[in-house]
Amino acid sequence: MDSKPVLGLTMGDPAGIGPEICLRALQAPDVLKRCVPVLFGDADVLEQVSNKVSFFGAGAKTAAMARPRIVSLTEWEDVQTITEPLIVDCAAIPVSNVEPGKVSAACGRAGYVYIDNAIKAALKGSIHGVVTAPIHKESLNLAGVEFAGHTEIFTALTGAKRSCMMLYSDKLTVSMATTHIGYLEAPKKLSTQRIVNVIELTVEAMRQLLNREPRIGVCGLNPHAGEHGLFGNGEEENFIVPAVAQTCAQGMDVSGPLVPDAVFTSAQRGKYDAIVTLYHDQGHIPFKMLAFDSGVNITLGLPIIRTSVDHGTAFDIAWQGKADPQSLYSAIRVAVELASGKLEHAII
Amino acid sequence: MDSKPVLGLTMGDPAGIGPEICLRALQAPDVLKRCVPVLFGDADVLEQVSNKVSFFGAGAKTAAMARPRIVSLTEWEDVQTITEPLIVDCAAIPVSNVEPGKVSAACGRAGYVYIDNAIKAALKGSIHGVVTAPIHKESLNLAGVEFAGHTEIFTALTGAKRSCMMLYSDKLTVSMATTHIGYLEAPKKLSTQRIVNVIELTVEAMRQLLNREPRIGVCGLNPHAGEHGLFGNGEEENFIVPAVAQTCAQGMDVSGPLVPDAVFTSAQRGKYDAIVTLYHDQGHIPFKMLAFDSGVNITLGLPIIRTSVDHGTAFDIAWQGKADPQSLYSAIRVAVELASGKLEHAII
Repeated sequence: MDSKPVLGLTMGDPAGIGPEICLRALQAPDVLKRCVPVLFGDADVLEQVSNKVSFFGAGAKTAAMARPRIVSLTEWEDVQTITEPLIVDCAAIPVSNVEPGKVSAACGRAGYVYIDNAIKAALKGSIHGVVTAPIHKESLNLAGVEFAGHTEIFTALTGAKRSCMMLYSDKLTVSMATTHIGYLEAPKKLSTQRIVNVIELTVEAMRQLLNREPRIGVCGLNPHAGEHGLFGNGEEENFIVPAVAQTCAQGMDVSGPLVPDAVFTSAQRGKYDAIVTLYHDQGHIPFKMLAFDSGVNITLGLPIIRTSVDHGTAFDIAWQGKADPQSLYSAIRVAVELASGKLEHAII
Repeated sequence: MDSKPVLGLTMGDPAGIGPEICLRALQAPDVLKRCVPVLFGDADVLEQVSNKVSFFGAGAKTAAMARPRIVSLTEWEDVQTITEPLIVDCAAIPVSNVEPGKVSAACGRAGYVYIDNAIKAALKGSIHGVVTAPIHKESLNLAGVEFAGHTEIFTALTGAKRSCMMLYSDKLTVSMATTHIGYLEAPKKLSTQRIVNVIELTVEAMRQLLNREPRIGVCGLNPHAGEHGLFGNGEEENFIVPAVAQTCAQGMDVSGPLVPDAVFTSAQRGKYDAIVTLYHDQGHIPFKMLAFDSGVNITLGLPIIRTSVDHGTAFDIAWQGKADPQSLYSAIRVAVELASGKLEHAII
């Protein structure tokens, strides 16, 4: 029996760079030595992208590779053993409806269908985790899908009681108490319990990734973390101080509230293993600066493993063979690391 | 007549690292070849710090240097020519009242007195600009000084109609539409006019520093710059789109609203010369990550030149001879650059 984990990849928005980076992953030696990839997508779209990118620079090798086995969704139900890369054809969109680089409801809907099927497979235990290529939030919205993004979809469809986004790299790791909501809405979602949840989930994930007790820093909300009440409305004292106290009392190594414009440099210099941030850009700005191409997005708190690329659909270069698959490869590597402790639970 | 500009240095909070980094500046060859420094501070505090740090590592050379001439505030009024470093003894605090590393009203007040006198000298034209060492916002607040920081003090005391903070380095430059106010307060201060002001001030300063027309990027407020209205309350459409249109119509090279977690990497890669940010940490987080020790804080829009170190009072290492003066040296270099075009206006 093959000891490599089987990972579901979702193709992402058909009009973005998802199809081409997934195609590359299906034939990348670094990916294939670590796992068996199962790509949830549309076979016709992948075929067309494969033909198209084969004419462009770095994409030229694609067409020459052996074509992976393609199964329909019905056939997928009956697949017993998975030892080779596989494409699960979800037949979610006719290729003639895909205009590369364009926002559309049809593409938003298709991207959602791939995710839905991959989550079902993971919940059944047919795959050991899900690695997602980028979807486009406007297309998703146009399709009438009422979720802000992957994190929210995975949380809802897996019935997770609590979850959060973590951005992981070897240079900096940040988790987030809020993500895809407006600047002014973020503080309304904060509470001691929410921050405690995010600290606990972060500690749990970092223990697994580092094999030791992690050191966690928690950001303040206001400039200078409020400077002892000078700025802001006491958010630091109201939510962060008690959350840090509560998790420290449980034996975790947690510091905060820390000054947001200093803590990332401290983390980079090795003082903290992960930083809990309070709003999207507080975590994303420093993370993207340090790990623009190599970051991995992990959803914590789910009953299944889910990692993702840390970039968008890059509509401006879609279907041109220019997209860099490194972030997807990193996401696959991290999913394999997370899955390694869980293989015994798998059905296959 | 000496062609070097005369720059006022303010000693900062006496309990912080200001005194020791200013003492180093008064004898640093790199500083002395570019300008004639005039330090506004307390002579007794400087004397005691000088004696103390001379016993510690990198500070050992301090005591051996020639002591600069010291003048009282009254004598300072009558100084005609300045060709050598000078200490203006403001006698703002007895040295026995200074406890290194401690917040105190007396130190907050003293820090303010140095600034007040330096601004008066600059407005009179006795000095060509002011370079400030760090003050402590809590001490300032305890002293009953009703300003959030240097930027606000300089704006008020010079009667500037509009001003903003810019953080400048060779790696990244950011200016800020709001600074030392709470997270939730920042958006309330935004308006098209405010953003236009900050863009115009940034363009003006960068023209002088780069000797060419600068390319300016303006951040959105919300995650993904609102993603076309998906997140937030339309701040991008309401304030930023019209401000960018208005300044472009004036012939400036301005782009925005840009995605906050991507734009700093673009700037770092050379796409923009400066980024206009909307709140303290949006600008400070990326800037401090790239230029932690070498950044310069410039107040734009003043009738005088003002630059500053880009760090705090570092109470934990105050009076120990460990403080790195590089940011102060950078602030002095930038003030010299800014002053170079203005020497003809000086009285001296």
